Amino acid sequence: MNITELKERVYEANMELQRRNLIIYTWGNVSQIDREKGIMAIKPSGVPYDTLRPEQIVLMEVATGKVVDSELNPSSDAPTHLALYRAWDEIGGVTHTHSPYATAWAQAGRGIPCFGTTHADYFRGEIPVSRFLTPEETEAAYEANTGTVIIEAFEGRNPMYTPAVLTRGHGPFTWGKDGMDSVHNAVVLEELAKMGMWTLTLSPEQQPLPQHVSDKHFYRKHGPNAYYGQGHK
Amino acid sequence: MNITELKERVYEANMELQRRNLIIYTWGNVSQIDREKGIMAIKPSGVPYDTLRPEQIVLMEVATGKVVDSELNPSSDAPTHLALYRAWDEIGGVTHTHSPYATAWAQAGRGIPCFGTTHADYFRGEIPVSRFLTPEETEAAYEANTGTVIIEAFEGRNPMYTPAVLTRGHGPFTWGKDGMDSVHNAVVLEELAKMGMWTLTLSPEQQPLPQHVSDKHFYRKHGPNAYYGQGHK
Amino acid sequence: MNITELKERVYEANMELQRRNLIIYTWGNVSQIDREKGIMAIKPSGVPYDTLRPEQIVLMEVATGKVVDSELNPSSDAPTHLALYRAWDEIGGVTHTHSPYATAWAQAGRGIPCFGTTHADYFRGEIPVSRFLTPEETEAAYEANTGTVIIEAFEGRNPMYTPAVLTRGHGPFTWGKDGMDSVHNAVVLEELAKMGMWTLTLSPEQQPLPQHVSDKHFYRKHGPNAYYGQGHK
Amino acid sequence: MNITELKERVYEANMELQRRNLIIYTWGNVSQIDREKGIMAIKPSGVPYDTLRPEQIVLMEVATGKVVDSELNPSSDAPTHLALYRAWDEIGGVTHTHSPYATAWAQAGRGIPCFGTTHADYFRGEIPVSRFLTPEETEAAYEANTGTVIIEAFEGRNPMYTPAVLTRGHGPFTWGKDGMDSVHNAVVLEELAKMGMWTLTLSPEQQPLPQHVSDKHFYRKHGPNAYYGQGHK
Repeated sequence: MNITELKERVYEANMELQRRNLIIYTWGNVSQIDREKGIMAIKPSGVPYDTLRPEQIVLMEVATGKVVDSELNPSSDAPTHLALYRAWDEIGGVTHTHSPYATAWAQAGRGIPCFGTTHADYFRGEIPVSRFLTPEETEAAYEANTGTVIIEAFEGRNPMYTPAVLTRGHGPFTWGKDGMDSVHNAVVLEELAKMGMWTLTLSPEQQPLPQHVSDKHFYRKHGPNAYYGQGHK
Repeated sequence: MNITELKERVYEANMELQRRNLIIYTWGNVSQIDREKGIMAIKPSGVPYDTLRPEQIVLMEVATGKVVDSELNPSSDAPTHLALYRAWDEIGGVTHTHSPYATAWAQAGRGIPCFGTTHADYFRGEIPVSRFLTPEETEAAYEANTGTVIIEAFEGRNPMYTPAVLTRGHGPFTWGKDGMDSVHNAVVLEELAKMGMWTLTLSPEQQPLPQHVSDKHFYRKHGPNAYYGQGHK
Repeated sequence: MNITELKERVYEANMELQRRNLIIYTWGNVSQIDREKGIMAIKPSGVPYDTLRPEQIVLMEVATGKVVDSELNPSSDAPTHLALYRAWDEIGGVTHTHSPYATAWAQAGRGIPCFGTTHADYFRGEIPVSRFLTPEETEAAYEANTGTVIIEAFEGRNPMYTPAVLTRGHGPFTWGKDGMDSVHNAVVLEELAKMGMWTLTLSPEQQPLPQHVSDKHFYRKHGPNAYYGQGHK
Repeated sequence: MNITELKERVYEANMELQRRNLIIYTWGNVSQIDREKGIMAIKPSGVPYDTLRPEQIVLMEVATGKVVDSELNPSSDAPTHLALYRAWDEIGGVTHTHSPYATAWAQAGRGIPCFGTTHADYFRGEIPVSRFLTPEETEAAYEANTGTVIIEAFEGRNPMYTPAVLTRGHGPFTWGKDGMDSVHNAVVLEELAKMGMWTLTLSPEQQPLPQHVSDKHFYRKHGPNAYYGQGHK
């Protein structure tokens, strides 16, 4: 993929945030990585979606975090995106939003349990909440260290099996094969956050789905024995 | 009705799910049966609604569950639909969604009580929640056994008098005279699930509607003495 | 106003229910009275809003309840509308919906307290909930007796000062100067029902607005000393 | 800026209330001040947004509160707007709405704690709730005294650091650099009110964000060391 096409795709993925009602104003950003070139493309900081154009997408060197050939500042959350790309080779796109249901869980400091098969279809187990940064971590490099605590929250877990996190007191980050796929996961996460809150409204002590049901749904869509969709006739 | 027309109708009923905001992405499916031909028409698996075309609707033999003359896989929930058609002669269409309010009740493992006349106009008594499948049932034939536990939940009940169920930890199935009618019932169910949750928010110990009011509303619209609408002047 | 114009207005008021998202399918009806002619115009029963035409609006004699010169059945709730017009000379239009927040209060059997100035701007004091009909009242004349219990709930109250009621286990009726004004009050009621539920979520024991604030807002918009709007320079 | 342009901008800011779904009917108003001319431009009272035109925007002398060269009455809340402009030199625009989530907090008599970084990005600390007016204050000059109690609630606080208040039992007022900026803050406030209520649903005893995180986000967007957006490369 050439750079123009990369910018186009990142632009499209950012615009999808607005079409899916995950954001207001400039409250979100999507990036995508080109691993061969070592380049990340990301939304510029503070540019309203209504006026955003593909050529305004900012390029950054993943290794150094330096802006490449762009006049605009990248999203202030760029160091978080970079940290995730550096830590996890499998991911190709990252999305950050303040979508209201997921943000409410993040503000409440609670992970989202797997209450149903909709969750199990997309995410293995609870969607974790990362810890607060210490004053020192906040002062030193807030956005990069936000990446650090996300990675910490996934120790021993496969990030592609649960491609979402709630950063405590802040909001969700999701990831995926590419930028658009990470937006898809952000949409699903918001739906799960909504249904999860309502589940607790109806059943305050609700336990997660039994493991065998959860496994069934996850592996119906993931792995070698998947049989959902058109890719396995 | 010929096969082309059956596919058209099933296509239209599936598209209605999207128009009524019951689904996102590919999270739902509608089928309709032609009892004379012994054929069920159903949405293909994993095909987005935005690109779905009538000719992609998949045909299956009800007796054997075999796909007839179609290149696409049927919805992975097809065995559940087939089980319901085989068990209940009265039904002509089936809808499955993950509509968020109904799904929250399913995840909470609670049936929806008849709290008001809106409910009584459409459904006799509580909308039941089916039990979880055992690990063995899950392993053996998950989707077909989902049908089995739904049928179990209706033992001694008329499925056409309460054309909806919540499959535990999963979401709603509804049925009706044909595909479009089952979608209508899915829309009504979601509205009742919403109003029911809010009723409990305002009155956590709320009891169901008195039986005589419930009966009045149900029989105002159903049976030989119905007087709602234009069919009985 | 001639009959054609009356039908037009009642048609427009009914369509406004749909534009304001108060109804789905055929779940509501609006009427308007011509007191000189002794005629009520009302939506026909069970006709979807998408196909409703002005000439389908049904006329009824208020004194006798007989349909005049119409081929369609009137709304099954027509006897409730008639009862209100007969009891209260001041009202010119009536609306019935199953709008979800107001219906949740009706299902919970709770009146909506005056929690804020938005409420006080439109309605004096609590919006009452009428009692359940007895089995005898239900059997004898359900819809007419629904009118009776509404009127009972307003004994000693001015219906034009609080132009709304929640019929227990059923849903809201509102009224006003004419059909469109009763729809306006239905929209406001739904907004108050929503804000009232959320107020209780944040403050479960919340008391009503102090009386002097409530009075100030009500009389800012009603009565000889009103100074809201353009009618009193 | 000439008067025609001032009216245009105030018109646009008022229309933005409707586009952002903060109001129904005539339930809100936006004003903007021209400090050089000593003139405030504000929405006329009771005029529906659908028919509002720029030339209907009403001008008032800030010093005296007299209407200048306008045929329409100003918003009945005009004295509240004037009080804020007189007290706070920094503000250029004021918005009042009855947006439902913020109004629910106002009705509940609770300030909105800073539960997350979305809040900290825009507002320093809790969004305060002003006290009820006494019967005497209500009688004497209700709208002007609404301004007085708002100002009282900000004693010792910078109104530009927390440009929003909940007037008890009534609803939100926000302010900003100009009319449109005050609408922006009204949109953000409503989003925070929504997410804050949901946070308490998930965590009823939820404490505010740690101070160091709150500071970090606020100063990322405000003051000399801000680095969000494109104004500081």
